[in-house]
Amino acid sequence: MPDSTNTRAMPRDAALRERAAAVIPNGMYGHQNVHVLPDNFPQFFSRGEGAHIWDVDGNEYIDYLCSYGPILLGHAHPGVDRAAAAELETSDCLNGPGEKMVELAELLVDITPWADWAWFAKNGTDATVYAATVARAATGRGAILRAGGAYHGSAPTWMGLERGSPADGTIEYSYNDLASVRAAIDAADGDFAGLMVSAFKHDVFIDQEMPTQEFAQGVRDLCDAHGAVLILDDVRGGFRLDIRGSWAPLGVDPDLSAYCKAIGNGYPISALLGRDSLAKTVGRVMATGSYWYSSGPMAAAVATITTMQETSGIAHIHAMGERLRNGLADRAAAHGLAIRQTGPVEMPLLIFDADDADAKADLFTLLEVPRVRMFSAELAKRGVYMHPFHNGFLSAALTKEDIDHTIAAGDEAFAAVRAQFSDDPTPETN
Amino acid sequence: MPDSTNTRAMPRDAALRERAAAVIPNGMYGHQNVHVLPDNFPQFFSRGEGAHIWDVDGNEYIDYLCSYGPILLGHAHPGVDRAAAAELETSDCLNGPGEKMVELAELLVDITPWADWAWFAKNGTDATVYAATVARAATGRGAILRAGGAYHGSAPTWMGLERGSPADGTIEYSYNDLASVRAAIDAADGDFAGLMVSAFKHDVFIDQEMPTQEFAQGVRDLCDAHGAVLILDDVRGGFRLDIRGSWAPLGVDPDLSAYCKAIGNGYPISALLGRDSLAKTVGRVMATGSYWYSSGPMAAAVATITTMQETSGIAHIHAMGERLRNGLADRAAAHGLAIRQTGPVEMPLLIFDADDADAKADLFTLLEVPRVRMFSAELAKRGVYMHPFHNGFLSAALTKEDIDHTIAAGDEAFAAVRAQFSDDPTPETN
Repeated sequence: MPDSTNTRAMPRDAALRERAAAVIPNGMYGHQNVHVLPDNFPQFFSRGEGAHIWDVDGNEYIDYLCSYGPILLGHAHPGVDRAAAAELETSDCLNGPGEKMVELAELLVDITPWADWAWFAKNGTDATVYAATVARAATGRGAILRAGGAYHGSAPTWMGLERGSPADGTIEYSYNDLASVRAAIDAADGDFAGLMVSAFKHDVFIDQEMPTQEFAQGVRDLCDAHGAVLILDDVRGGFRLDIRGSWAPLGVDPDLSAYCKAIGNGYPISALLGRDSLAKTVGRVMATGSYWYSSGPMAAAVATITTMQETSGIAHIHAMGERLRNGLADRAAAHGLAIRQTGPVEMPLLIFDADDADAKADLFTLLEVPRVRMFSAELAKRGVYMHPFHNGFLSAALTKEDIDHTIAAGDEAFAAVRAQFSDDPTPETN
Repeated sequence: MPDSTNTRAMPRDAALRERAAAVIPNGMYGHQNVHVLPDNFPQFFSRGEGAHIWDVDGNEYIDYLCSYGPILLGHAHPGVDRAAAAELETSDCLNGPGEKMVELAELLVDITPWADWAWFAKNGTDATVYAATVARAATGRGAILRAGGAYHGSAPTWMGLERGSPADGTIEYSYNDLASVRAAIDAADGDFAGLMVSAFKHDVFIDQEMPTQEFAQGVRDLCDAHGAVLILDDVRGGFRLDIRGSWAPLGVDPDLSAYCKAIGNGYPISALLGRDSLAKTVGRVMATGSYWYSSGPMAAAVATITTMQETSGIAHIHAMGERLRNGLADRAAAHGLAIRQTGPVEMPLLIFDADDADAKADLFTLLEVPRVRMFSAELAKRGVYMHPFHNGFLSAALTKEDIDHTIAAGDEAFAAVRAQFSDDPTPETN
């Protein structure tokens, strides 16, 4: 267990930040830039093993971010690493794929009841962008419907990055709001090619939300009625919530489903699964990349998925998630703090009610959510790595001891928040 | 050396193709689909070592494609594999990058005289798409100029894939034609954000062409005169032609340079290098991916580049390329066949003059270039893997013996072509 009394000196991290500032824009870019995090979060890491990670100064943390999702079985999982290493030793990146590509495609089609084929790339964005292209090519129409505020990757087409690269051809609807979907279809005016939907609502800074049965079935029915393609963006939730795909418990099947992150336990691979009706379109619409056929990450994915099945990994993650959520809810209440924990327990998000009034939903300005920032900073001091405003990710390597250590650290962190914000209202107990 | 009399049975490849056809669209997608290649080219591979590769049936080939570029030092290079494995064992994909990211950025800035910073991703396309976004963000303008027929990645923005995802905001010019660049700038009508240019012209099915000094200096001057960003697409040539960047011998420096392929000897990483003047823009314009911070591929890149430097790898590749080009030219002439070998010797392309009349530049129809198809098929029979119409890539692992085996195989392959196409005119000797 991490040392809770560790002073957590970070001289090596500071030295690396200084070197990075000289040769990397902004010292770091993208989602792993720590500038928006509390000061005591390290920028650089050196080791991961199971559910624990170590920064470059040797400070240990129980990991509730899992590299923003990719780590599913735990860091440096011996079975996955062995499978990948066996490929890397002899083959990996050649003039054609290896046998592992076929094996992985067969496995994915086998575990995904509605899917007939699989396609592989490197980024989740590769899969979501290509899915939109396939929907357009298959229907001969242009408009892709997507939820306002949803993240589908950092491509210009999703983020409308800068002039000349608009969020071309997308029309917004509101998650879990069928009336808004109907309005978007009307706005498309006969040009409705496809609807992109996240497995659940996981926009930053606000409560997470599971899809309602009515919404999921409704978008399926509307796509069918209009001959449009239903695209599930399962990049964030895939393989962590249900091995069959995150909408399987709802009994609603998409036409295309995009995966990345957890599929290979950290090895770089993304996937698009689809139906036979779209196979010919995929066969003719070019998309490719230098490393898309590498067999190491494919072997890692086969090992990850089969290990999750054999060890009932998802059930274990769920149980750990329940234990964590219940424990933190109990400790927050004990300190008279009103918090909300939303989304699946496997991918938790914790918000302080009293932070809401101050919150500004802009990732690149200083974030006025002082309670959760203090809470996560206090956790980090005690060897618990929990992101203040990005949803967390739990791994199958977490033990009850990890969770209980975390709840104990949470108790102290809540106490610190209570002391700092002593004027905050105390919630009524029910 | 490969067995030149090998009958090259491929039952395992055939069985895998059948399985793939059931779960992978078109049996395979993208650039590694072999449907457009001669029948005796294998789809699936199982091993690479140095300059040699083996298909899943155990047939051995001398490799002149190098996985379409990524393999630079040779397959399964011990030094690179060791460096990557050391990272993978302890760290790789964590909540932040490792020290290797800083080391790699420092190395790239050090070897690239004009570059001040480095940024990393997974696909060459990630780097070219982001470069265009940065050019737009930095200038507040929309138009990106690019050469007609040039490949900058399979993103919708470059390929105009399907309705609703046009090649937005790009204007075409002709490679090595400054007048066409000036016309494109006029067409941009004050909205000229940046100019994207390949390190040399390597469009499929036509002769490759090096940039003229006048053209390179001209696009630099025009970008300067208009306050636009010069983007070098060095994805294909980078680290194989000049360690400082492929335009270094011309003395012309871009503002941004995109790398991928050879940078990590097959490990998945791409990079964008740039000037200080664009660092703030990169710092604020979001782009990210699940595996972009992984340290294994960064360690591989450090090892690849330093090994190339220490072993004078580029000089060796160049010498092998000269030996191959001269040998094949000599053998073709001996059989009275008119061929052209164009582009850098490190990345050769061979075209039969008599094929020109029949060639149709459409990758997805049957290609009417019968002589080069037969030539490459005859080479494959003799254990030489040379793509019929994509430029080749040579690795530093090639030996004189490999080249001489290849020239001997080429002699027999030219003889077969001569016999089949006996009516083709014989070139005048000079």
